[in-house]
Amino acid sequence: MPDPIFERIAIVGAGLIGSSIARAAQAYGAAGAVSLYDSSDDVRARAAGLDLGNVTETLAEAVKDADCVFLCVPVGVLAPVSQATVPHMKAGAILTDVGSVKKQAAEALASADNGAVQIIPGHPIAGTEQSGPEAGFPTLFRDAWHILTPQDGKDEAYAEAVQRLTAFWTALGAKVETMDPGRHDRVLAITSHLPHLIAFNIVSTAFDMETVEQGEVVKFSAGGFRDFTRIAASDPVMWRDVFLNNKEAVLECLGRFSEDLAALQRAIRWGDGDLLMQEFSRARTIRKAIIDAGQDSGAVNFGRNRNGAKDEA
Amino acid sequence: MPDPIFERIAIVGAGLIGSSIARAAQAYGAAGAVSLYDSSDDVRARAAGLDLGNVTETLAEAVKDADCVFLCVPVGVLAPVSQATVPHMKAGAILTDVGSVKKQAAEALASADNGAVQIIPGHPIAGTEQSGPEAGFPTLFRDAWHILTPQDGKDEAYAEAVQRLTAFWTALGAKVETMDPGRHDRVLAITSHLPHLIAFNIVSTAFDMETVEQGEVVKFSAGGFRDFTRIAASDPVMWRDVFLNNKEAVLECLGRFSEDLAALQRAIRWGDGDLLMQEFSRARTIRKAIIDAGQDSGAVNFGRNRNGAKDEA
Repeated sequence: MPDPIFERIAIVGAGLIGSSIARAAQAYGAAGAVSLYDSSDDVRARAAGLDLGNVTETLAEAVKDADCVFLCVPVGVLAPVSQATVPHMKAGAILTDVGSVKKQAAEALASADNGAVQIIPGHPIAGTEQSGPEAGFPTLFRDAWHILTPQDGKDEAYAEAVQRLTAFWTALGAKVETMDPGRHDRVLAITSHLPHLIAFNIVSTAFDMETVEQGEVVKFSAGGFRDFTRIAASDPVMWRDVFLNNKEAVLECLGRFSEDLAALQRAIRWGDGDLLMQEFSRARTIRKAIIDAGQDSGAVNFGRNRNGAKDEA
Repeated sequence: MPDPIFERIAIVGAGLIGSSIARAAQAYGAAGAVSLYDSSDDVRARAAGLDLGNVTETLAEAVKDADCVFLCVPVGVLAPVSQATVPHMKAGAILTDVGSVKKQAAEALASADNGAVQIIPGHPIAGTEQSGPEAGFPTLFRDAWHILTPQDGKDEAYAEAVQRLTAFWTALGAKVETMDPGRHDRVLAITSHLPHLIAFNIVSTAFDMETVEQGEVVKFSAGGFRDFTRIAASDPVMWRDVFLNNKEAVLECLGRFSEDLAALQRAIRWGDGDLLMQEFSRARTIRKAIIDAGQDSGAVNFGRNRNGAKDEA
């Protein structure tokens, strides 16, 4: 085992991501010691039985000796949680997060800046549709991108902190990239936020159709619908906060999506098979580009989602 | 190995489904002999090298001695293919298909009825995003539903033919259900056709966004988008024909979907977090119902899609 990147880390929020960081940091020797805090009594009690590290009764206790603090809470509460955390951190320690929206997250973390901690927002492009401390696993971040959105115009010490945090995520198996927070939010709006919104929506639509029984929808879900229900099973609080905090980019994507869908709808209504062929063939080409880019190579990534999706037809 | 259900079967169209039937029929001993025909010279040549059965140079040769003929072609060409097939079939043999739309398929098959064959339309709820004779595999239909839509008001011999075809699909591992073709089309419109249309559409939308580079969309596709590209990689011809031939039910679902999406869009614009929470929580409940119903039990079905989808985040 190599020397740990951080002597001691603290994780605030022991859900899927927080508990996976705890497990991975220990499994890969990236942290000497891990302490965790969760504001929920129930989650703390469950986390304590899971060998994730030292689960503390207070936030202050968890973070006071940490070299790096990971805030793994919904974006909507990042500001108050940051403000409650920073005063207890030691000077020079790193404060980071895992929020799916980075402009708002950066502002939330910055609202707690006391000049003594290094604030480096981050976002792992990894997860499953499961939630809670039991859902985490140490290989979640392997071969996944981890995006850091460091602050501009900072000093040498900050640059070193970014390097250290990069080394930590690299040790967990992630591929680290730095990006402007606004750009992150525009890219993720289309690659993640819109797909989730669509999935949530189609599941609702299916269950409101009077012409079809709900039992039939469940029974014959293998036809494609099932994949959407998996995506739509993700944590509702996390996703509510994503949409409320990346409103502009999501609405832009959604507008485009609806326009494009109206064109397909019209093609179906008027029997325009050529237009349908053209659009469907194009989508297939894009899929090929993703496979060629190694973003979907089957076996390698298979193990990452323990509940995997299945075929459609 | 038990006695075969059919002494001899013929498969017309050696794509993913046709070649999987050929492989499964041999692997499970459900047919004594398999012959295949495909109208494409290239597909015939590839199929001949794959140990799928006897690949013939003419349609007539493939079907003339068959006890059951499986038409595995896009719905749009089912009528002419049926009409070219039936005159060469022996009296009392079964004619079935695997089309994803059953009202049109039933009419297409019926258009070739000469009073000497038993016409039983069918649809396996199974598949992957792959196409071609190489894509098939013998376990594709295991634990998948196979829907038969038998004709009304037929005689005892017809009922026996339905029983035999049911036994064949059961031998391949499928769960067989009979259904009215109109009902089939309404159920599949929401569980399969709409999800595919949405997936095709979001892939197009993503690649038309000027605010985001295509390389970024590919790179960060693990956030949810990748699952959609997998669904959208399905055969364009097959799907064009599905939408052209199940127009009414698809447009009905699509109208509902767009209405529901407009409500979510409005909630995001106005920051209505309560409505978002309510809808997202509901979607999660539906996912749970699907898991409880055993339609998504992980390991059991995992092997069915050799290219499986991965986690989102």
